[in-house]
Amino acid sequence: MTYCVGILVSEGLVMLADTRTNAGVDNIATYRKLHIFARPGEKVMALASAGNLAVSQAVLALANEGLENAETGETETLLEMPSMFAAAQFIGRAVRAVHRMEGRVPEQAQPGGFEISLLLGGQVRGGRLRLFLVYSAGNFIEATTDTPYLQIGEHKYGKPILDRSVEQHTRLRDALKLGLISMDSTMRSNLSVGLPIDLATIPRDACEIGLSHRIGADDAYFHDLRERWSKALGKAHAAIPPPPYENVGEQT
Amino acid sequence: MTYCVGILVSEGLVMLADTRTNAGVDNIATYRKLHIFARPGEKVMALASAGNLAVSQAVLALANEGLENAETGETETLLEMPSMFAAAQFIGRAVRAVHRMEGRVPEQAQPGGFEISLLLGGQVRGGRLRLFLVYSAGNFIEATTDTPYLQIGEHKYGKPILDRSVEQHTRLRDALKLGLISMDSTMRSNLSVGLPIDLATIPRDACEIGLSHRIGADDAYFHDLRERWSKALGKAHAAIPPPPYENVGEQT
Repeated sequence: MTYCVGILVSEGLVMLADTRTNAGVDNIATYRKLHIFARPGEKVMALASAGNLAVSQAVLALANEGLENAETGETETLLEMPSMFAAAQFIGRAVRAVHRMEGRVPEQAQPGGFEISLLLGGQVRGGRLRLFLVYSAGNFIEATTDTPYLQIGEHKYGKPILDRSVEQHTRLRDALKLGLISMDSTMRSNLSVGLPIDLATIPRDACEIGLSHRIGADDAYFHDLRERWSKALGKAHAAIPPPPYENVGEQT
Repeated sequence: MTYCVGILVSEGLVMLADTRTNAGVDNIATYRKLHIFARPGEKVMALASAGNLAVSQAVLALANEGLENAETGETETLLEMPSMFAAAQFIGRAVRAVHRMEGRVPEQAQPGGFEISLLLGGQVRGGRLRLFLVYSAGNFIEATTDTPYLQIGEHKYGKPILDRSVEQHTRLRDALKLGLISMDSTMRSNLSVGLPIDLATIPRDACEIGLSHRIGADDAYFHDLRERWSKALGKAHAAIPPPPYENVGEQT
């Protein structure tokens, strides 16, 4: 399993991805799922993937090495796309191309099939900073000011904190913090999401990466965040008065 | 969708169930999913169900009206079972009986199929207070002191708070409070889980219901709990220091 989240606020974009892959709980490995494509000052994109690792790696290879444009016959890479919208279309075409190349396999041969989903965020100079979620079918949706974050993979455990706290005007550093809390909730409840965590920020209109960092098991800040969050949740429910209903049935 | 949770602590058992059913988001209704079976002082059981409503109602009817015992040829009701283990087996047999009666239908005819899962908790005088989760296949698992709660339906959103805070020695009233927080998280993130909430407590060794209550939209305590929890979460993440990493990319 995988958990990746992209948060698009007015100051910029945060992308977070875990690195655990598994083919059954007896076959666990670490793979980078967050990849940066950049020509600093001109174009910057972050791509995160969840789902079938073979398909993810093939899409990544096409993004780097190029995919034939059916109309012009030319081979284009992701960074040659003139806009983020064109880049999202490129990723969609790459997903479909991989599915075509791999052909169809019986469901039994590949539990979970060749399903994949990707987050693509970034900015091309002159355009807006944008965040897309590309589905297995190659179509995509975009984050908006109403819903400023998108998730792929094991998204449910980490969604409540985002639903409650992330909005367009959240500061970029706070969005990163909330993303890490969301990641912590997911890691606690699903063993197949695990450290290290890769993260990147893309400040709006900078057209380059702000921060690119890997959080490992020895990261003091993340360790502290997990402890503080856990303690604060304990205090939060302790501070809520007990239900006033009669006859709950305590022993005195 | 549905969310039901049972929490078994040393003082007793809490059972919580929402009441929303839906066949698509354009067909939503309210049905009681938590049912009490009791001969006060002798036997008490609480049954909650998630999944196909027709199957749930048929299982409930068999529990009330009786199911033939293949060995003796006699028709028995749930309350005639001599132990909680026998009661869990009864529910398993009832699920299989309904599946046999309804036969198999093409997947297309019934999205989600005839899947169902049930929580059965309670006590028979002379036995232990126990909590079971009965699967669609009719087999079941039991809550233990290591994992003192069981969930059915939309379980992920509300699981983190239980994972963090519920343990065997949690007071019964606090277990109820934590169950309500878990329900709140689920309702916020999944529209198909909704008010009213039915709840019941069964104090250990009382062999009768402690509290049986329905929380509607006008329940002052639940309203207050939701507000306090939301504010406390906001404060909790605000109190965590921002990530110390350089170059996150704030605008100053």
